[in-house]
Amino acid sequence: MPANAFYAQSGGVTAVINASAAGVIETARNHPRRIGRVFAGRDGIIGALNEDLIDTSRERASAIAALVRTPGGAFGSCRFKLKGLDEHRAHYERLVDVFRAHDIRYFFYNGGNDSADTCLKVARVSASMGYPLACIHVPKTIDNDLAGTDNCPGFGSVAKYVATSMREAAFDVASMASNSTRVFVLEVMGRHAGWITAAVGLADDDAHPLPLVLLFPEVPFDEARFLARVDHLVKTRGYCCVGVSEGLRDASGRFLSETGLRDAFGNAQLGGAGEQVARLVRDRLGHKYHHALADYLQRSARHLASKVDVEQAYAVGREAVRAALRGENGVMISIERRSDDPYRWSLGRVPLTRVANREHKLPRAFISRDGFGITARARTYLQPLVRGEAALKFTNGLPAYVRLANVSIEKKLAPFEA
Amino acid sequence: MPANAFYAQSGGVTAVINASAAGVIETARNHPRRIGRVFAGRDGIIGALNEDLIDTSRERASAIAALVRTPGGAFGSCRFKLKGLDEHRAHYERLVDVFRAHDIRYFFYNGGNDSADTCLKVARVSASMGYPLACIHVPKTIDNDLAGTDNCPGFGSVAKYVATSMREAAFDVASMASNSTRVFVLEVMGRHAGWITAAVGLADDDAHPLPLVLLFPEVPFDEARFLARVDHLVKTRGYCCVGVSEGLRDASGRFLSETGLRDAFGNAQLGGAGEQVARLVRDRLGHKYHHALADYLQRSARHLASKVDVEQAYAVGREAVRAALRGENGVMISIERRSDDPYRWSLGRVPLTRVANREHKLPRAFISRDGFGITARARTYLQPLVRGEAALKFTNGLPAYVRLANVSIEKKLAPFEA
Repeated sequence: MPANAFYAQSGGVTAVINASAAGVIETARNHPRRIGRVFAGRDGIIGALNEDLIDTSRERASAIAALVRTPGGAFGSCRFKLKGLDEHRAHYERLVDVFRAHDIRYFFYNGGNDSADTCLKVARVSASMGYPLACIHVPKTIDNDLAGTDNCPGFGSVAKYVATSMREAAFDVASMASNSTRVFVLEVMGRHAGWITAAVGLADDDAHPLPLVLLFPEVPFDEARFLARVDHLVKTRGYCCVGVSEGLRDASGRFLSETGLRDAFGNAQLGGAGEQVARLVRDRLGHKYHHALADYLQRSARHLASKVDVEQAYAVGREAVRAALRGENGVMISIERRSDDPYRWSLGRVPLTRVANREHKLPRAFISRDGFGITARARTYLQPLVRGEAALKFTNGLPAYVRLANVSIEKKLAPFEA
Repeated sequence: MPANAFYAQSGGVTAVINASAAGVIETARNHPRRIGRVFAGRDGIIGALNEDLIDTSRERASAIAALVRTPGGAFGSCRFKLKGLDEHRAHYERLVDVFRAHDIRYFFYNGGNDSADTCLKVARVSASMGYPLACIHVPKTIDNDLAGTDNCPGFGSVAKYVATSMREAAFDVASMASNSTRVFVLEVMGRHAGWITAAVGLADDDAHPLPLVLLFPEVPFDEARFLARVDHLVKTRGYCCVGVSEGLRDASGRFLSETGLRDAFGNAQLGGAGEQVARLVRDRLGHKYHHALADYLQRSARHLASKVDVEQAYAVGREAVRAALRGENGVMISIERRSDDPYRWSLGRVPLTRVANREHKLPRAFISRDGFGITARARTYLQPLVRGEAALKFTNGLPAYVRLANVSIEKKLAPFEA
């Protein structure tokens, strides 16, 4: 009997994380003599700790294929972070116990920075316990901040969504600006890194020149300079669009969303960073504004996913299985850029020691000198990642997505008590 | 020399109002012996008052054709409302003066309730001044509240957007609900009518059953019943999605967005209705929430427009020109539903006296008895309107939209002083 595999989704989900799941499961199914069943953790790694393992072999091939076009996390995810070995050794050992009980020899963990760290520790603990386990990290994060890879599956689709949304809203506000709304503010995700904020900049190009201001989490918010810029754009172009990171901070490093700006009466105005700067524009410049908060819409918008992103998400899942079958362990599958234009990429492997607890920061050279826009280098990097429209199935005018049966296998161990 | 035509966009723009513009302009171009040039009002009717007329004959056929797939208002719009004849007679007479100066005998006004009223008054004033002018109203509003037509161009695309967005976000929150976000709130437009809120209900169907709560502007907000419903859904289904109208009101008829709910300390919490109910869920039920505000994104999302909506938007523009050429006056082009399934529709004309100052309200029979959902009758009505995916052109991974040159013709009159 071939050994089984375990797959889990970790952290915030994306429009394409299920494509990685499909890549793992379909590739495993193609190697029935080497891999038995693929179990998925219900609600991520928590499912492994609780021995709540979903038997993906009970899903039809058509359902697994439909994962490629279904957003969210098909098996559930979690934000539970395993801590260091000193503190959480029992958890790591429990994982190995569960894997041993179900003859799981392959561990595919689909997540961001934290899960790369977890994956590395599981590899070490299983080795120290003498249990052979191939631990492969499958990259995923809309934030694009994973080290060791040119880009992360999940990011390209968010980038395409926020850039498209800003361009469309800009056409709207431009129509209304002569006598109504003059400033449009879109708040986007990316609390600690401005990759998504930078992607908003793609909305503005030669064929669609927009009066756009970006507020990056990397650039401390300078109220006076910001207001001057907005005012200038409204005066010269008639309107202004503002893309704001949810993680915008003031000069002292505090999040605007936590501290609040003060209104004319000195009262703190609570709300997200986008709402804050929108109100500021109204209160100080007197412009009517509209304000959108994309929130989950941006990371679940499978209907507007980037084809490149979907393909890469699937490919890293497929390659994770192949790497495990080659005997690799403690690595993350990475995306390597071969050329910008035409865009060419290939897959690689990076030791998890080079991924865990590191961060792929937005280069300062991607932010324009004035701090309010992106550079040509940023465009060159970002542009290929939003390219292509991914296939979708519509039923009754709406995207048709799949829900799996998600049947658990029988437990063999006593409940875990941490 | 054939007489000229005037076309103007009014009020909030939509993802498909430019398709109506294309319908008007292309059809007029097909009748060169009857219609000379089509002038467009820069920023709507204000352009006519200011004699700022855009010469659409200077635009290439390809640019006009591209309007069909471009959101926003290509010539600018305005929220300026002409008042009654007693108060604003000079304005109406000015319009006729401008039309006379430029030999404009056709007036196509593309808007909602207010502009239907304006169109009717212009027809009356021109008649009383002995100036022959065919006044045809071209329906447009995302709110779907125009009387005399089964539905309004602009609504179907918003409906498709909000239903798709809610479905996608529901897949996201379902993944996270075991240990993180349990409640997702989406605020949608429609301050006085719940048509858009009802459309959110399409996200939930047999193939995609969602624990969904809708808060209509027609149903006074009952905090206790709402919280009980959300709590029940979270307990039984694990999570809950809430679609909230921006026009949600409390039992005394006040907008939640204006009055604010009280937090645990009795402080008013300002913000939109969606934010209000989201915080309420957190404060009273202790659930982590996410909250999105679609704002302009919902009405400018041409990338997800309904094909039926685009076709109808174009058709009402085309039919307006044909009706004018048939000698009709003081009418609105209407959409008449012939059958639900298969969906069949045709165009009709309604006298503006039957449109102006009326309202197409969401029928009570479309809201479920408990007030939190939609009925089968609502689905039957809504479903055809979101059907089909409209063609789009992408360049570099983003939708390519057109901007017209918008060159004004020379003025002949003295400036208008109201």
